[in-house]
Amino acid sequence: MNGAESLVKTLLASGVEVCFANPGTSEMHFVAALDDHPEMRCILCLFEGGTSGAADGYFRMSGRVAATLLHLAPGFGNAFANLHNARKAQSGVVNVMGDHASYHLRHESPLKGETTGISQAISHWTRTSADAAQVAADGAAAVQAARSLNGQIATLILPANTAWEAGSAPQVAAPPPALRLPPAAEIAAAVAALRQPGAALMVDGVALYDDATAQLAARIAAATGARLMAPFFAARSRRGAGSVRMQRLAYELDLNIAILADVKTLVLCGAQRPTAFFAYPGKPSLPEAPGTAVMELADIRMDIPGTLAAMADCIGPLPDLPADARQPLSLPPLPTGALSLEKVGAAIAHLMPEDTVVVNEAITSGAPVAGPLQTARGHEWLVTMGGAIGAGLPTAVGAAVACPERKVLCLSGDGSAMYTLQSLWTMAREGLDICTVIFANDTYRILHGELVNVGATQPGRNVARMFDMVEPSLDWVALAQGHGVQAVRVDSAEAFATAFAEAMGAKGPRLIVVPC
Amino acid sequence: MNGAESLVKTLLASGVEVCFANPGTSEMHFVAALDDHPEMRCILCLFEGGTSGAADGYFRMSGRVAATLLHLAPGFGNAFANLHNARKAQSGVVNVMGDHASYHLRHESPLKGETTGISQAISHWTRTSADAAQVAADGAAAVQAARSLNGQIATLILPANTAWEAGSAPQVAAPPPALRLPPAAEIAAAVAALRQPGAALMVDGVALYDDATAQLAARIAAATGARLMAPFFAARSRRGAGSVRMQRLAYELDLNIAILADVKTLVLCGAQRPTAFFAYPGKPSLPEAPGTAVMELADIRMDIPGTLAAMADCIGPLPDLPADARQPLSLPPLPTGALSLEKVGAAIAHLMPEDTVVVNEAITSGAPVAGPLQTARGHEWLVTMGGAIGAGLPTAVGAAVACPERKVLCLSGDGSAMYTLQSLWTMAREGLDICTVIFANDTYRILHGELVNVGATQPGRNVARMFDMVEPSLDWVALAQGHGVQAVRVDSAEAFATAFAEAMGAKGPRLIVVPC
Repeated sequence: MNGAESLVKTLLASGVEVCFANPGTSEMHFVAALDDHPEMRCILCLFEGGTSGAADGYFRMSGRVAATLLHLAPGFGNAFANLHNARKAQSGVVNVMGDHASYHLRHESPLKGETTGISQAISHWTRTSADAAQVAADGAAAVQAARSLNGQIATLILPANTAWEAGSAPQVAAPPPALRLPPAAEIAAAVAALRQPGAALMVDGVALYDDATAQLAARIAAATGARLMAPFFAARSRRGAGSVRMQRLAYELDLNIAILADVKTLVLCGAQRPTAFFAYPGKPSLPEAPGTAVMELADIRMDIPGTLAAMADCIGPLPDLPADARQPLSLPPLPTGALSLEKVGAAIAHLMPEDTVVVNEAITSGAPVAGPLQTARGHEWLVTMGGAIGAGLPTAVGAAVACPERKVLCLSGDGSAMYTLQSLWTMAREGLDICTVIFANDTYRILHGELVNVGATQPGRNVARMFDMVEPSLDWVALAQGHGVQAVRVDSAEAFATAFAEAMGAKGPRLIVVPC
Repeated sequence: MNGAESLVKTLLASGVEVCFANPGTSEMHFVAALDDHPEMRCILCLFEGGTSGAADGYFRMSGRVAATLLHLAPGFGNAFANLHNARKAQSGVVNVMGDHASYHLRHESPLKGETTGISQAISHWTRTSADAAQVAADGAAAVQAARSLNGQIATLILPANTAWEAGSAPQVAAPPPALRLPPAAEIAAAVAALRQPGAALMVDGVALYDDATAQLAARIAAATGARLMAPFFAARSRRGAGSVRMQRLAYELDLNIAILADVKTLVLCGAQRPTAFFAYPGKPSLPEAPGTAVMELADIRMDIPGTLAAMADCIGPLPDLPADARQPLSLPPLPTGALSLEKVGAAIAHLMPEDTVVVNEAITSGAPVAGPLQTARGHEWLVTMGGAIGAGLPTAVGAAVACPERKVLCLSGDGSAMYTLQSLWTMAREGLDICTVIFANDTYRILHGELVNVGATQPGRNVARMFDMVEPSLDWVALAQGHGVQAVRVDSAEAFATAFAEAMGAKGPRLIVVPC
């Protein structure tokens, strides 16, 4: 058994059964080993950003670690942006990056690059296998690292000779270390703080989608009189009818300043301290009111359900979940007439089946569409966590691979979708049940807004040339069909509803273009 | 004047007049400053790999440094692979990467990332502006760095507050330091070595495309009796009729072992020591014959023409350029009948105008096509220098921006083109005179070959799933049209010749799909 075979067997024995791949020559022995193990599902992405984004979506919806297969330093570079998003989503990913044979690295060859340097710029864990006999242990350690602390980016660099030389027996990844809990004194202090007027409990992580954990958070809030809050950006949230209601932060700094104005004590359980997405001249980085007591009880790398359970223990018997704690079901009627984003949202809310996984990277178009979905049938809501657009389509791929029985709905701006449009082909190749809606406004609309924020009022030629995707406009129907995905452009609310209903009724990838 | 304005004025004053851009919010003040200076040509790329690849092609054909405008760490990550290629091509590029305001970095926001870490993994020069008053000097230093040592990757990280706070007066980049020459004793030793039997002079850099320098190298070879050689991968080569003939290395290790078998002394002037692209089990990393004396006289970062001139001085009066030193003109007839790669090459050779810039990323299809071009009208030949496929289309964009009066011909494999297909839109947007030929073999053919090289003979399901772009096949006509580029798929040699002749006769982007 060579090193590559020992790695494939180690991954399989450790429960890694999907590999999002874009291989090159230095990974050829690993490819050959994968070929001997068809029980590893290898999914080709035609660009590496598709692999890392898919691994992110797969982890979020399955809780399982996937592997990516990446070529040397530049291939990893192409995966970098969506590894950044995956890192911010706390997704566990094992990257297998090939490298030249260790003895070849003393010579200058075209693909020689800083494999360790680029990995360390994004991975929580990086290791280069020193020899073939170490590969199995290194692979097991990588899987363990990826599963640790609620999910990490682990990158194993595999010099070609460690893949082809004699390896050792496969290993099984050890379980990740137990997650940390806050000390009892901090739990007690947090409970006391929540009982003060103007207190809020902000949760994140599993508390946003696991119903038992969400209920626990809501009952703690009810018991203490605190507001229950959630961040704007969350890796995964249960939304729509039946989900536990939480007050969510907004994207805009000014809105968050208003939302947090009355909060005197903010207890964070899994959530990061609210922070402006960007800094703006003359505005604060933190939206909290001056003087707010912020208690960072548990960060996202700790045991969130355990922390909530410890708080509950500290409180004593909790009240039942309040009657109005869950979002009601309220479906809008099917819209008619001229297209608008709100009508698209209404049609989606009316038609979307229970348990749809919605991946939202629609940026400026997302908010009007999301409104009617608040009371739609219960669904999952995934967003791009690191702000690096181009995650939407790949995340949808990974979510669909994780949940073949669920419909995936990918909402994307046209600008966002262009970064990783190659994922459309993977949707077609794998027959993934994804309906992609492209909001085609022919511009990076958010940048126009941000330009106003910095005080520019009369945009000129260079702004127009850099912000607007016109002359020519993109033809998304052609782009989708070029990748093998059936597509239609709609020009009325009825046409959207018809196309969307058809997509909900059929299996497999579809794309709908909404001019807006 | 804020820091951003001082930077734009510094770039312009220093002769940087093109900016390949994919901006985000943290670069908004820089965008506003660019907007006030329409004399800076801002060219939007819908994916950052397009910006870095274009800057590479622009430098190779103009010798001038372009700027790229990139968003934080993930945006830079998307540019990484083509920065790797640019680095290996010795292209000068100034990256302007935004970052959060320095005071915002203490908080966790979604886009916070290792800007310095990822830059240092690929750039020769990295600097983060410390405050707005330093930005002009930093920008001038970046341009100087990019122009140094025949071309470098220089990355200036611009925290948002250094862009919006008060800057200082613009600066002008100082000239780069003089290039180094080998000591006289080494020159003399090299000349003596070239006079030995079995000697070869291998040149690179400007010696491959500047006619005066190439002549000088050929006359030195004639005077000493040495073979004149060139590497397989070169950032820019003059080829076709009238170009100075040199014996070129091949891609394949075994071929290079044969080519170099008789070389007893190899003098390198600008060229790197020949090295296998990858290591293979049981094969050497270096193709040279055992015992070959390798003299690394001047590396690619030194003064190549100056080194050749010093060698000429050492030799004394040189013979005239030998009568057969230049490639003759010999155009094949227009082909007919069934399509083949050789016939495509013949049609191109027959029809391609003088001074066409050919960008070749056709990988396995490239060699058969290139054959007939050896005696076509004189042209430039650019290849992907770092082995990271996805450079072809962006390099063509940059070359066309650099040479608006010349026809650019981009030869690309379908697999390669998929990495950065968004560059098609930039071709359409800018009306670039580029004819792209996509060799659509529906597979990463080179990987099938490499798999055979590692001994796998019966590929199974996972190899097929990872190597072949079928089920579905890509529709390149639709993909091109979706980006706004006119396209046609041909099914015979005549159809190719007709489509290619039409493309050569018209201005603006075209795409021809060659099934193969």
